Amino acid sequence: MSDFRQRALDYHAKPTPGKIRVELSKPAETVDDLSLAYSPGVAEPVREIANNPDDAYLYTGKGNTVAVISNGTAILGLGNLGPLASKPVMEGKALLFKRFAGLDAIDIEVKHRTTEEFINTVANIADSFGGINLEDIKAPECFEIEQELIKRCKIPVFHDDQHGTAIVTAAGMLNALEIQQKNIEDATIVCMGAGAAAVACMELLITCGAQREKIYMLDRKGVIHTRRDDLTEHKKLFANNTDKRTLEDVMDGADIFVGVSGPDLLPPEALALMADDPVVFACSNPDPEIKPDLAHDVRSDLIMATGRSDYPNQVNNVLCFPFIFRGALDVRASAINDEMKVAAVEAIRQISKEEVPEEVLKASNSKSLTFGRDYIIPKPMDPRLCSRIATAVAKAAISSGVARLDSLPSHYK
Amino acid sequence: MSDFRQRALDYHAKPTPGKIRVELSKPAETVDDLSLAYSPGVAEPVREIANNPDDAYLYTGKGNTVAVISNGTAILGLGNLGPLASKPVMEGKALLFKRFAGLDAIDIEVKHRTTEEFINTVANIADSFGGINLEDIKAPECFEIEQELIKRCKIPVFHDDQHGTAIVTAAGMLNALEIQQKNIEDATIVCMGAGAAAVACMELLITCGAQREKIYMLDRKGVIHTRRDDLTEHKKLFANNTDKRTLEDVMDGADIFVGVSGPDLLPPEALALMADDPVVFACSNPDPEIKPDLAHDVRSDLIMATGRSDYPNQVNNVLCFPFIFRGALDVRASAINDEMKVAAVEAIRQISKEEVPEEVLKASNSKSLTFGRDYIIPKPMDPRLCSRIATAVAKAAISSGVARLDSLPSHYK
Repeated sequence: MSDFRQRALDYHAKPTPGKIRVELSKPAETVDDLSLAYSPGVAEPVREIANNPDDAYLYTGKGNTVAVISNGTAILGLGNLGPLASKPVMEGKALLFKRFAGLDAIDIEVKHRTTEEFINTVANIADSFGGINLEDIKAPECFEIEQELIKRCKIPVFHDDQHGTAIVTAAGMLNALEIQQKNIEDATIVCMGAGAAAVACMELLITCGAQREKIYMLDRKGVIHTRRDDLTEHKKLFANNTDKRTLEDVMDGADIFVGVSGPDLLPPEALALMADDPVVFACSNPDPEIKPDLAHDVRSDLIMATGRSDYPNQVNNVLCFPFIFRGALDVRASAINDEMKVAAVEAIRQISKEEVPEEVLKASNSKSLTFGRDYIIPKPMDPRLCSRIATAVAKAAISSGVARLDSLPSHYK
Repeated sequence: MSDFRQRALDYHAKPTPGKIRVELSKPAETVDDLSLAYSPGVAEPVREIANNPDDAYLYTGKGNTVAVISNGTAILGLGNLGPLASKPVMEGKALLFKRFAGLDAIDIEVKHRTTEEFINTVANIADSFGGINLEDIKAPECFEIEQELIKRCKIPVFHDDQHGTAIVTAAGMLNALEIQQKNIEDATIVCMGAGAAAVACMELLITCGAQREKIYMLDRKGVIHTRRDDLTEHKKLFANNTDKRTLEDVMDGADIFVGVSGPDLLPPEALALMADDPVVFACSNPDPEIKPDLAHDVRSDLIMATGRSDYPNQVNNVLCFPFIFRGALDVRASAINDEMKVAAVEAIRQISKEEVPEEVLKASNSKSLTFGRDYIIPKPMDPRLCSRIATAVAKAAISSGVARLDSLPSHYK
């Protein structure tokens, strides 16, 4: 067994199994404490909430709680291993929510026969929480699940594999284009992969100005075009009215390549065909669509991002999901809408343009980090992320009309 | 607003809403920590669990986690106020699980249209947890819900309003009969109330030796007898082939009265009819079926218990539920069966016969507590409860064949 493998198993098993635990947030030492926490005192908040459901935010943990929910059908890159096997990932996500944004997250793994049954199960328990983070649910079911739950729940429902990835990708992409002195509106985009993350990334880039007709999406069968008759609903949205059929066809003159597919699927010859000053986001993890060293050898005018922490410009969801929920929950938003996603994109962009705190340099083993081709995305350990993104998202929730509070909480600046 | 009411609301609201929170149980400070807790390290326990589902007990918090689940149809004595209004009670229960037994409990409030939908919802999420504590679900649906979930889940499912109450009642009752020098087998029992707790109390007393034909159960319409045609399935189990029709009829010569009904429903005249050396458990809360002072005035030969902490012999579920789950989870029991319930009864009985630790006297403001008519049930703050009940329950799980571990964990004596 490799050393890393053993360390990972030991980390999860010792000294106690798992990574999160429940603690009391109120005193429970004396008989008096218990008479307030439970019978008879607990009847008082019960009555208040029965009269006014929003009082659940005053008297219970609802407003600071995120449920991390999966059915285990697309666990990391490992595939459909079932709900129980996804539990370490969901607990890990809960750990990240707490560590980075102070949110109390619990993991729930759902077994089900039909997609409808999954949706019903989650909708039935949703009121217990302040928000729901869906995770590791395979496409195309994930689209229907998220859309239907958004309709049925009064709290934010957010499929992180789609939108967390999309938000960090969009932030890095817009920064890269700025450095390359290109506009997203004029850019020709190749998207290799047509799953949940691919679709969400392209939709958010369109929200940020990209032209749908300049996007070429590829699945295992090649370019997704209007004459194909094997397309799911979500692929149809990206069916391009084009005669181009192969990766080489679409890479010829492209400005942007986004890979959310698999290892080494971008041949250097295809990269060589791109327009001057291209941007390549090769996000397949742990092995990107093209190795960064090889890519830079082929194109010295390249700006490149990957999913890896050992290369510059890591696209890492943890830059987004804890903080977008922090902002949404802090103003009791009923949803996470496009305005809030774009606000998160802009906040992330802005952070990477500012001077980096000493502690972040230390944590990321860097001597200096200055906005430029090797630093277009902030580092995960950057303490500015939480306050900046949460504030931007909360403000956007208020101005776009989905917040139930009409001003920022007092602890915001 | 009364002082107590305001204190109860403040306790729940300040400084943060609610009573429980999530914390990390593993380090998450460095990039290396995060690589173990989340990607890529988390893939290792995922693979292990996919190969062997029981490894979830080694690598996740499953084995120490209890879900406290309600639909809010019978909240305390307040009635059907809906799932969200039950949240403070469920969080309170989670607090008690942690405080008394170190279990990580989370609350889930379920909305649903049909009983079947509630059952499906809970069954679909059950594998996430080590056990399920059902709470504040109204009769008669609670019986079907618990029975069906026990069938469908591989983990213990326990409706505390039924069995927690029954276990503490049976322990106190058997001790009271011992002091009165009576046998449960010979006792005539009157049970006022025919809801979840009443049915479970009587069933457990029968498991402990009581004769079903010597039990007279009363609902709002009087004695439940075989000639009534308005009985639910569970009441039918207690339909007595008798000519007795009124409370006075059945109290005449009875040895035991168990009240799980409402305030002041036992008239002193009825109490006066009981046999010599009677036992009265008046568990309606906060106002018992007869006030203890009045009862003792009528019958000086009485042993009495109530649900109140300000009188001797409090029947309090917290004496049982944290510890029966502690024992069940520690040997990965697949259910909580009668053998385990009886083991809990015997452990509670035994504790009240032993010398009381100084700290318990202090916590309960007592100078002395000696087994006798004013001390037949241990005090909630007694630290012996956890180890003694959990050990007895875990042993019973092993010997009755429902434990998935075949020996006690090493931290047990």
